[in-house]
Amino acid sequence: MVILLRESLEGIEQCQSHEPDEFTISSTPLLPLLFLSLFPPRNSVEDYHDAMVLKSFIEVHPDSHFSIQNLPYGVFKHEPDSQPRPGVAIGEYVLDLSVIALAGLFDGPYLRNSDCFNQPNLNTFLALGRPAWKEARTTLQKLLSAAEPILRDNASLREKAIVPMDKVQMLLPIAIGDYTDFFASKHHAKNCGLMFRGPENPINPNWFHIPIAYHGRASSVVISGTDIIRPRGQGHPTANSLPYFGSSRKLDFELEMAAVVGPGNELGKPVDVNEAADHIFGLVLMNDWSGDIQAWEYVPLGPFLGKSFGTTISPWIVTLDALEPFASDAPEQNPPPLPYLAEKESKNYDISLQVSVVPAGQKDASVVTRSNFKHLYWTITQQLAHHTINGCNLRPGDLLGTGTISGPESESYGCLLELTWNGQKPLSLGGTNRTFLEDGDEVVFTGCCKGDGYNVGFGKCSGKILPSPH
Amino acid sequence: MVILLRESLEGIEQCQSHEPDEFTISSTPLLPLLFLSLFPPRNSVEDYHDAMVLKSFIEVHPDSHFSIQNLPYGVFKHEPDSQPRPGVAIGEYVLDLSVIALAGLFDGPYLRNSDCFNQPNLNTFLALGRPAWKEARTTLQKLLSAAEPILRDNASLREKAIVPMDKVQMLLPIAIGDYTDFFASKHHAKNCGLMFRGPENPINPNWFHIPIAYHGRASSVVISGTDIIRPRGQGHPTANSLPYFGSSRKLDFELEMAAVVGPGNELGKPVDVNEAADHIFGLVLMNDWSGDIQAWEYVPLGPFLGKSFGTTISPWIVTLDALEPFASDAPEQNPPPLPYLAEKESKNYDISLQVSVVPAGQKDASVVTRSNFKHLYWTITQQLAHHTINGCNLRPGDLLGTGTISGPESESYGCLLELTWNGQKPLSLGGTNRTFLEDGDEVVFTGCCKGDGYNVGFGKCSGKILPSPH
Repeated sequence: MVILLRESLEGIEQCQSHEPDEFTISSTPLLPLLFLSLFPPRNSVEDYHDAMVLKSFIEVHPDSHFSIQNLPYGVFKHEPDSQPRPGVAIGEYVLDLSVIALAGLFDGPYLRNSDCFNQPNLNTFLALGRPAWKEARTTLQKLLSAAEPILRDNASLREKAIVPMDKVQMLLPIAIGDYTDFFASKHHAKNCGLMFRGPENPINPNWFHIPIAYHGRASSVVISGTDIIRPRGQGHPTANSLPYFGSSRKLDFELEMAAVVGPGNELGKPVDVNEAADHIFGLVLMNDWSGDIQAWEYVPLGPFLGKSFGTTISPWIVTLDALEPFASDAPEQNPPPLPYLAEKESKNYDISLQVSVVPAGQKDASVVTRSNFKHLYWTITQQLAHHTINGCNLRPGDLLGTGTISGPESESYGCLLELTWNGQKPLSLGGTNRTFLEDGDEVVFTGCCKGDGYNVGFGKCSGKILPSPH
Repeated sequence: MVILLRESLEGIEQCQSHEPDEFTISSTPLLPLLFLSLFPPRNSVEDYHDAMVLKSFIEVHPDSHFSIQNLPYGVFKHEPDSQPRPGVAIGEYVLDLSVIALAGLFDGPYLRNSDCFNQPNLNTFLALGRPAWKEARTTLQKLLSAAEPILRDNASLREKAIVPMDKVQMLLPIAIGDYTDFFASKHHAKNCGLMFRGPENPINPNWFHIPIAYHGRASSVVISGTDIIRPRGQGHPTANSLPYFGSSRKLDFELEMAAVVGPGNELGKPVDVNEAADHIFGLVLMNDWSGDIQAWEYVPLGPFLGKSFGTTISPWIVTLDALEPFASDAPEQNPPPLPYLAEKESKNYDISLQVSVVPAGQKDASVVTRSNFKHLYWTITQQLAHHTINGCNLRPGDLLGTGTISGPESESYGCLLELTWNGQKPLSLGGTNRTFLEDGDEVVFTGCCKGDGYNVGFGKCSGKILPSPH
């Protein structure tokens, strides 16, 4: 059983009520902070874990996704031709981990001699595993805390290490060896089944026993902000004609999250479900765009071109350690899972998710759905254990998508297919209607956990639809 | 139309009649060769292309797969802890390309300043494209020819550059970003359909319009010789019981070949089918092992754990340039393909394929099938063009598997599922019977094109089945 560290979820809408571009924080320069007197200097780094309202000397607006309790990891560039480097987000800033490492401030046993922050992606760091991740988190929370003078009082180091987020370009934080997409939401499976299999038996029987998944395309995973070109391909033929060929007519977003794999496993050696969490570094938001060209191609081998034209992830990986206070019990599974999927502790996370669309030619976003990661039926640890039960090897940086995360109510469905019931019920967006996405539409995902006085958020994951090539 | 450079295919069985371990060649040390008088020194490298019976100063047995006309690329290590380096196979030897490059012998415009042969895999070389590949081929054919003294007469260089094949360890020659598996054999599609869909309509209608494919697992692609551990997973439940969990009961090989991608394409920019060949470096043999746990999991998203436990490829990539003399017309396609798949020249290659099984506890291999690459319905260029029509980006080193290559006759089917008709007709192998693979069985693929006085072969692609973990 998971012990909830928070008594209530009140105020979670507050975390959701800010459009991504409004996460504005005072642009006051870094200032040694107000609450210093509340947080006298501590000697033991463990103390920082216990601080329920740990504060940073960097001002973090209460609505910011990037509190000192979060510290998500990303990879950024200062200039178009500068070297990519790892960083963590804090308020409106990025802390450059290559600078911190060069300054010798990662002085614990796991990181002292590692070059993991002098890399163009996080894979080396991911491979080190949870002890190193915890050491990094402890080190960084201490370094950024209001009570700690090392960085706070060193203007030269601060200037090198702390970069305004709006001055950097975010990159894919990981080299993705393989990307797998699961189908872990029961509500999504049921809705798709109702539409395409009928009400008798909407969910295929295997779904209740297997965290169903398929291999996705790794090459076309792109970072938030990358334009998505409407795919072309084949659609169902009518009567005796040839199949339709052209642009996908029903282009959709799919509200997903994805687990980023840390240490992998050797080929032939499955990961025990109760140890699977140690193989997961953290989560990102993911839009696994979908085109209706999938419908004609997917029998019998599954989705292919209807998915491989693009998958967008958010730049910041929020660690499982940061998400721990937001753990929630996963839904009861009935029928009970087979022993290799039976977990001692079956954990989801209470992450509010929201999708907005800025229709082509407009400036304002309209919220089209609000869902939550906690609605998933199969947990990410079950997904990972299942993935390896046949001996398949995972590698650091692999991406495990959850599949579309739909909630139980019609306002919480995770894609337009469900929200408009395959186009039958258009959505009204700021004076215009949508059944599926049109060229020029921009889709923005956000995700956030609301803590007591702080957020652990994912920032945003966005992409704009461009027309197909001629 | 493809012009066949050979009049006849007689003698192709000769190329097949040698078990891989019997490709023994005289172990006489490198010797300046007999036919020198037949091939007086030439000044123009182009001349070497025209030499129908070009000979090397390295003795190559007539049955060897690795003639000077072939020169397939691989990556090898001298010692367990030495650096991987690219090489080409010639007879019983490997020519170390890092040594040739260091000696300044790649002196053409594309390779002169490249570090592509000082790499642990071939990806950098693959990215350079066909002009560089042709330059390398011309350079190496000249360097290895009987008429050319540079390497032939330099004992010190020869000693460094030419390594006995049985002294090196072969490695995966490419870093595989994504692996895609097609379903391009009509005979295979029909046989599977007859078994599982019935005789009315064995092949799904989309198959005739789309080179059907799915994303495979890149991490578990292994090099020939790697043991394959029998996967565990779920099988169909009976009546009201839980699904069966355990080792895959019907474990199979799948006789495939795979195209290795050279230069990729940008996301959103499809490759024209008539330019697709320039994106393909060459072919390897591939055993895409298959477990029957696929049957319960694959609806609706396709094969997953039934495939991702292992895929074996042969170590030597035979270039399309070496295969060109063995080009053959692809089968007529009816209905005609959509315009984006309509090729000016629709080309297969006449590559004899053979699968042998060494049953557990035995020493001798029994041939279980003989097929041919030319039986494929969808060409590799159509496969590649289709893969990118939605904008999906390919990258150098990507692997495009053909799917099981079955011929029209029952002796040419490409997997045990077909050969034993799902276990109904056991095969007799050296005094024992097989329906599917048993623990300890070793499966050996070979592939070869028989030229006039030389072979262009693929060597072997083998793997042995180990039992599932407890």
